[in-house]
Parts: sequence; C-alpha cells; structure tokens
Amino acid sequence: MMGSVGEVHAQRMRFDEALALRSGASLAGYDLVYETYGELNAARDNAVLVCHALNASHHVAGTYADEPENVGWWDNLIGPGKPLDTERFFVIGVNNLGSCFGSTGPRTIRPGTDEPYGPDFPVITVEDWVHSQARFADRLGIERFAAVLGGSLGGMQALAWSFLYPERIANAVVIATAAHLSAQNIAFDEVARRAIITDPDFHGGHFYRHGVVPRRGLQVARMIGHITYLSDDVMAEKFGRALRSGDYSFSFDVDFEIESYLRYQAEKFSSYYDANTYLLITRALDYFDPSREHGGDLAAALAATRANFLVASFTTDWRFAPQRSREIVEALLANHRNVTYAEINAAHGHDAFLLDDPQYHGLLRAYFERIVAGLGSGR
Amino acid sequence: MMGSVGEVHAQRMRFDEALALRSGASLAGYDLVYETYGELNAARDNAVLVCHALNASHHVAGTYADEPENVGWWDNLIGPGKPLDTERFFVIGVNNLGSCFGSTGPRTIRPGTDEPYGPDFPVITVEDWVHSQARFADRLGIERFAAVLGGSLGGMQALAWSFLYPERIANAVVIATAAHLSAQNIAFDEVARRAIITDPDFHGGHFYRHGVVPRRGLQVARMIGHITYLSDDVMAEKFGRALRSGDYSFSFDVDFEIESYLRYQAEKFSSYYDANTYLLITRALDYFDPSREHGGDLAAALAATRANFLVASFTTDWRFAPQRSREIVEALLANHRNVTYAEINAAHGHDAFLLDDPQYHGLLRAYFERIVAGLGSGR
Repeated sequence: MMGSVGEVHAQRMRFDEALALRSGASLAGYDLVYETYGELNAARDNAVLVCHALNASHHVAGTYADEPENVGWWDNLIGPGKPLDTERFFVIGVNNLGSCFGSTGPRTIRPGTDEPYGPDFPVITVEDWVHSQARFADRLGIERFAAVLGGSLGGMQALAWSFLYPERIANAVVIATAAHLSAQNIAFDEVARRAIITDPDFHGGHFYRHGVVPRRGLQVARMIGHITYLSDDVMAEKFGRALRSGDYSFSFDVDFEIESYLRYQAEKFSSYYDANTYLLITRALDYFDPSREHGGDLAAALAATRANFLVASFTTDWRFAPQRSREIVEALLANHRNVTYAEINAAHGHDAFLLDDPQYHGLLRAYFERIVAGLGSGR
Repeated sequence: MMGSVGEVHAQRMRFDEALALRSGASLAGYDLVYETYGELNAARDNAVLVCHALNASHHVAGTYADEPENVGWWDNLIGPGKPLDTERFFVIGVNNLGSCFGSTGPRTIRPGTDEPYGPDFPVITVEDWVHSQARFADRLGIERFAAVLGGSLGGMQALAWSFLYPERIANAVVIATAAHLSAQNIAFDEVARRAIITDPDFHGGHFYRHGVVPRRGLQVARMIGHITYLSDDVMAEKFGRALRSGDYSFSFDVDFEIESYLRYQAEKFSSYYDANTYLLITRALDYFDPSREHGGDLAAALAATRANFLVASFTTDWRFAPQRSREIVEALLANHRNVTYAEINAAHGHDAFLLDDPQYHGLLRAYFERIVAGLGSGR
C-alpha cells in the first residue's frame, strides 16, 4: 500500500561557523530549514538527501497540519510504499541557502543591521550549497548518504555531491539535468534577470525598504521559465490555439488559453517568490560547470567520483535534453563508474521529472530497491 | 556578375479611401512607403512583391545615398544577377501598415488630432496587410504578381495572398513559416507583450505624450525574440560558455558573451522600434490561422489557391520547424497544387531565411529562373 508521510513539520538548524563561498565571500552564520520523513536506521546508512530546484523547498512530501492543501513537491515519489519508500529510507529535504522559503537568504535580516540582506546576499554556487549540506549532514550524524537525489538544478547538486564528497555518497540520482548550461539556457536566465532588474520596483534589490515587490519583472521571468519547462507538444495538447471566449478580441487582452494560464501562474509566483532569490538561483545555474577547472574535460572533473549513478532524462525535455544527460553518462563511463541511464519517453518536457509517469517511477523504485538490498553491508 | 541594386529611394503612396479591417474597425486614410528595384516590363507580368517580417521594412535591397551603411535586409538575395534578379524582375518592398518605418502606424499623427495613434491604432491582421497590398498593386498597375515572397511573418502574407487573391499571384514563395502559431509560439509573443505593457514607461501605449519609450520592456521582448530566432546549436557554436573577462564576476553583470550580445542587440532595437508596433505585429502573428474559418481544415482554407508554390524550411528552425511547413505542403497537395518543397540543412535556426546559404539561394535562383521562363506566356 502506498501512502502519504502524513503531517510533517519543518525544522530549523542554526550554523554559527562562517561558510566560505566559492566567490571568495563568506556567509557569517546561517539557518537551514529542513524536513525529514522516515527513520534513520541504527547503521545510519539509509539517509537520502533530496535537493531542490528553482521554485521548490524543503517541503518535499506530506502536508502541514495548518495547511492540508500544501502537499510536498515530490509527494508522488516519497512515502510509505512509494518508489522512495520512507519505511526503508530516512529522507531529508533541505531548503537551499539564498532561497526564500526559510533558510537564510536575501529576505533574512542581515546580522548587525535591521534590514534584509537583499542584493548584498552573496552569490551562491551549486558547490556552496553542497558544502552547506555536508555540514548539515554532519550535524545530523550522517556520514554517508545512501543516495543524493535531485532533478534539474537538484540534479546538479546530486552530481556535485558525487565529486566533492565521493566518500559520503553511495548513490547519485541525477535527473533531467546537465553538467553545465548551454548558451541558450544562459540566454533565457539572462532575459529573466533583466526583466527583474529593470523593473523600477526592484530598486537595485532594495525593494523591501520601499514596501514594494518587482512583480512585473518576476511575472515575465516566471512566464519565460514556464515556457521552457513544458514541451511544445504538451503545450499544443493542453492549450493549442483554444480561445477563452471563442473569438478574437482584437486587443492585447487574454484571448488564448495559453495566455491566461501563463498570466495566472506568473501572478501566483510573483506573490510569494523573492526577486533576489530568483537572481541568485539562475546565477547558480549559469555558473555550474565542473569541467571548467579541468580545461572543459568533464571526465576529468568526474574522476574523483565513487558513487553509483542513476542518470535519467526525458525525450521531450528541451531545457535539458537527453543529449545533456548522455554527456554526463559518457564522462562517468570514461571513469568506469557504475551507471544506469534511462531516457524516458514522456510528453511533458522538463516538468516530467516532477510527474508520476509509471515508467519513470518504476525505474526509481527499482533503483531504490537495489539500494535497500545493499543497506547495512557497509556496517 | 552579381551586383547591388545600388542607391535606392523610398517612395510614399497615399490612400484616401478607408480600409475595412478584419476586426470590424476601419482605417480612414493611410500612406504606404515602398521601394522598387528593376523595371516593370511591358506585359506588366514580372512584378515580385517582397513581404516583410517583424523587424524589417520596405528597404529590402540597395543602400541610401545619405546612409551608405544601411543595406536592405534581403540584399544578398535581390539585385542584378542575384537569385531574385532585378534585371528580370520588378521587385517591390512595401512597409506594412502599423509598422514604424514610414507607412501609417501608431507613430503617425491621428487625423483630426495632434497626437499619434498610439494604442488606438487598430489591430491589424495578415489578411488586412494583403488587402492593403492589393490596393497598392492596383495603383502600380500590377494586376498579377509573378510572385509574392516572404519568410516568417512575410511567408504568412505570401500564403494569404494565394488564397485571398488567387488570380493575382502566379507563384507564392513561402519560407520558414507556419499556417498558424503553436501554443508555444503564442506564449513567447505573450511574454514579450507583457514585458512591454507592464513597463511603467508604456503609459498604456501613450508614451509619446510623456516623452519616454518603454525601453526596458522592448529590450526584454527583443531578447526573447532573439533567442527564438537562433538555433541552440548555432548559439553554442557562436557563444558557448565563453566569458567576457575570462572569469566569473559573481554578480549579475555581464559575464557570458551571450549576455553581452543579447543586451547589445536589445539596446539597439529599443532605440528605434516602436512598442505599439511590436504589440500589433505579434498579435498579427497570433491571429493568423486560415484554417480557423474552415473548422481547422487547412486544406479547405487553401482550396481557393491557384498559384504554384515554393515552400522552404530550415532543419534547425525551432520557431517554425520544418513540420510546420510540411503541414502547408500537405494541405496544398490535397488540393493538387503544384508545390516545390525544400527542407534545407542549415545551422542558423529561424534566422537562416535571411542568410545566403548556397543551397538555399541556389533553390531560390532555380525557382525564379523557372518563373522567368514562363514570363509573357500569359499575355
């Protein structure tokens, strides 16, 4: 029987030791907000870290007592009897530094001031996140993860874990991602950032003190993002050229269902997402490129890895196309790593990694069952 | 010997009779600005109309005496000895209504007022443009075009000519276009429009009276457009992840060459392009859908056509992919039209239709030579 993890509670962990960042800056002290599902076993070897992508958080599964509608973003995957089975695994979701969902970020009051960090929050990289997560694992008493798992930007974190902490990760589950953004990927990020930064309500990132939010810029940024998350095909199927009122208005109002959908999603997003966080997270995406310090040689960058890998991509994902996953697989194979690769036939584009396609979830279930079979062997 | 048409002069034609528009509105009187190259023959059957796309105009070939750098946008195609040979053909470029390059549009002073039309300029459709061009042809004494030619939005006009005025067009040359936009195409247009409309300097389209231009919105719109004009591959080849300064700045300034390129192009564009025109032209794209009045049956919509067709697409064009051209070809073949179709192997994406790829230009040359062979036969 598959079930929900039920009511969950976010927890907060304080770190007083400064975190040195890749930029050369450092973050004085900080909080990480997280959730856990299932129980850490006696051998402490059944922990799975779930890394999140742009618009997600530590709330990965279950619901909150006071918000029964607020279901975790990967609840279809994680729970008792689900592919990532919380009766076997101790699953952890942690909110990334720089985010706007509870961990220290641009909205946090900057120590020694009475104002939020805002634009002075340091630029954070994928590697910085992984280092902060490793400290977090230390505090939880987890020396080695059974798996680190993520899709999209989360997949980059799982990949970074595998070469930054090779001894601390038994399996890396790397879904719908790339070893670095393409020029086109960066271009979309840059347009989104320009939309936010040039919104007069952005005030150079100090919008908090003006009591406003760069809503227009955030909306445009979100619309651009949304287009890239969906395949052309699924957009055609879901919306096509359907009209809201059955006829053209001969105006620039909403005529097409797709316009209505994008505006609605964008408005919702701009009501809660932090503009400075959007900039930080797109920059983390842009900057991720482990091959860079190895003269562009990804295989060299991944030589330090020791984990087993599951790499998965989706046929209609044009944001991080299967070819981008194959580059990762080839670099791992060049290092004789143990890699399972699946290219999943799915209609939904990049968003497919969040959906419960049976082939996809079957694959994850089988992979985690294989991990279960090995649990305790390292004791 | 291939040469330039040399120095050219824009001309202006005044129409006092109102033009009834598809929206139900009508345009009182209007001007069309145009250029011609070559000579109309005695049989008046060698005229070729070139229809333009979003960011183009009547200035199709040659240069201006006072602006020797201002070369027409399809100069590589049109001139003495070029694929569209001005020693054989009388080639006409006309600026569309609603544009910002000379023909009546939002920047034009509205009759009876001392203010530009601005947002009160009526929404124009592809079909409206074709009707205005037919009147224009009447005044030039051209009963039937040897060909109407266009790429992208220009290709939609060429296609519309073929079913609106079947007796007045011997050949339709329809390049890198679609019989209607997909949901994804509309989505990109909508984001661009939102960027413009929500720019506070847009002032509901009345920015002229405030002495400002919604530059930020126009820039974001242009950046989005630009990304869709280029293939992922050519962006990777041209820019890749190349950095301007050799290292990350750990900021949101320009780090990557692609960012620099997009910003530069966008700034240039926003310095001359009219925001109301951008809205009008993207809406014309959205609304074009000849199948709509035929229950979605494109073959039925094209049943009235009589022309011969050259349809061409480019393998890496993801804005209007080859599949979209094939839909047109299939609908024409269902009507037993004479169709030449070419899917051209080109790296540059949608922009390829403006470039002088030898295979592409060879195809156009051969097609126009075939037209030459038939000239005079209809006398």
